[in-house]
Amino acid sequence: MSGSVVVAGLGPGRETLVTPEVEAALAEATDVVGYIPYVARVAPRAGLVLHPSDNRVELDRSRHALEMAATGRKVVVVSSGDPGVFAMASAVFEALEAGPVAWRALEIRVLPGITAMLAAAAAAGAPLGHDFCAINLSDNLKPWALIEKRLRLAAEADFAMAFYNPRSKSRPEGFARTLEVLNETCRDARPVLFARAVSTPEQSLRIVPLPECTPEMADMRTMVIVGNSATRVIEGPAGLWLYTPRSA
Amino acid sequence: MSGSVVVAGLGPGRETLVTPEVEAALAEATDVVGYIPYVARVAPRAGLVLHPSDNRVELDRSRHALEMAATGRKVVVVSSGDPGVFAMASAVFEALEAGPVAWRALEIRVLPGITAMLAAAAAAGAPLGHDFCAINLSDNLKPWALIEKRLRLAAEADFAMAFYNPRSKSRPEGFARTLEVLNETCRDARPVLFARAVSTPEQSLRIVPLPECTPEMADMRTMVIVGNSATRVIEGPAGLWLYTPRSA
Repeated sequence: MSGSVVVAGLGPGRETLVTPEVEAALAEATDVVGYIPYVARVAPRAGLVLHPSDNRVELDRSRHALEMAATGRKVVVVSSGDPGVFAMASAVFEALEAGPVAWRALEIRVLPGITAMLAAAAAAGAPLGHDFCAINLSDNLKPWALIEKRLRLAAEADFAMAFYNPRSKSRPEGFARTLEVLNETCRDARPVLFARAVSTPEQSLRIVPLPECTPEMADMRTMVIVGNSATRVIEGPAGLWLYTPRSA
Repeated sequence: MSGSVVVAGLGPGRETLVTPEVEAALAEATDVVGYIPYVARVAPRAGLVLHPSDNRVELDRSRHALEMAATGRKVVVVSSGDPGVFAMASAVFEALEAGPVAWRALEIRVLPGITAMLAAAAAAGAPLGHDFCAINLSDNLKPWALIEKRLRLAAEADFAMAFYNPRSKSRPEGFARTLEVLNETCRDARPVLFARAVSTPEQSLRIVPLPECTPEMADMRTMVIVGNSATRVIEGPAGLWLYTPRSA
């Protein structure tokens, strides 16, 4: 078997954030699989088969990629952001572990990308400049009680916090509850960043003190970053900068 | 004033991980400032002044960059990895806030990069595929007691953990104490990744069960990633893969 699976991060949207090694992998691929909007970011060309698929079929997509690689295809699985952060890389390894032992002889590589929290942080300043945590607020794959426990412990640890998937139509109540828990535990007016569609032409940034945050400030395209107790806002003529000092 | 400060992430080492927008900023710069080994990664050219400086002078370097921008220079501050993760971006904003108000009218941009933990995670599989935290184990800028508190709370939250600056010659005892705390709190044999010189020709990866980890497995060029309680190792003919399942 000379096939391969490359799990590649396309970054959060802006084309100048795609790394050269991801471009090179796409240029050599015979097949690209991924969620529809991410596959749409790959330019069609002769010899390349695009396999867009719907959301929430990550394991099926991973098996499909491994099956094609086992027949000798050079498959790239595309993710938004970084494939290792709430994206496709874990799903590919779950499928690998559960699949035929022969798959373990395939060449598999993971190519990192700029994940949304780092692009959002950079756009606003440096809110993740001290110890921080990243939490997926979707309760599709874990119980809500675990999310709430992690929020309380993260606040007690005084981590800055980056939230992926803060809110969807199917579970609007989770982010409302998140804000309640944070207000109970943090008890201050630390700044919160709502970074929507970060690095795309529709990018919008909003910095709001924690007690004034409301659930509808976030949707599924929003990255939310909550400062730690020392996070500061600098006002300038061009707007606000947000940063977390290096010392504590 | 038409000068600017761009704080740019060069990624962890491999040139194919430098984003096109960082390359473009370097091509337009009149001055590059940064720690000696990072400035050494920038190709000299006519019209570009390189200003390498020693470690631990982050605030001086930031003030220098802002002062030059105030005279109209196009300054790029280079960081390894991502500038917003235990790197130069927070120092630049600390200097901005403490400096002359006129500096706030300068154009300032932060360009994200591939941070070491994401490159290390990708090289080994997907150990950060579920909720995780990033902790700087250096106690130069925070008390050790705070680091230890965060380690205990992160273990209780069952976060995977990425450790920057695990060990230096001047403080060899910190990482030994980290391993003691993790063994006390985690009480299992979860896998730990030691990723040294990640993405460079000298890269080495080692996966060790937590109880078997020893302090000398890490140095200042090592990124350490501790799995959560569900992190798994897959054995294959080409070596080990490490991944954290998406569900909990």
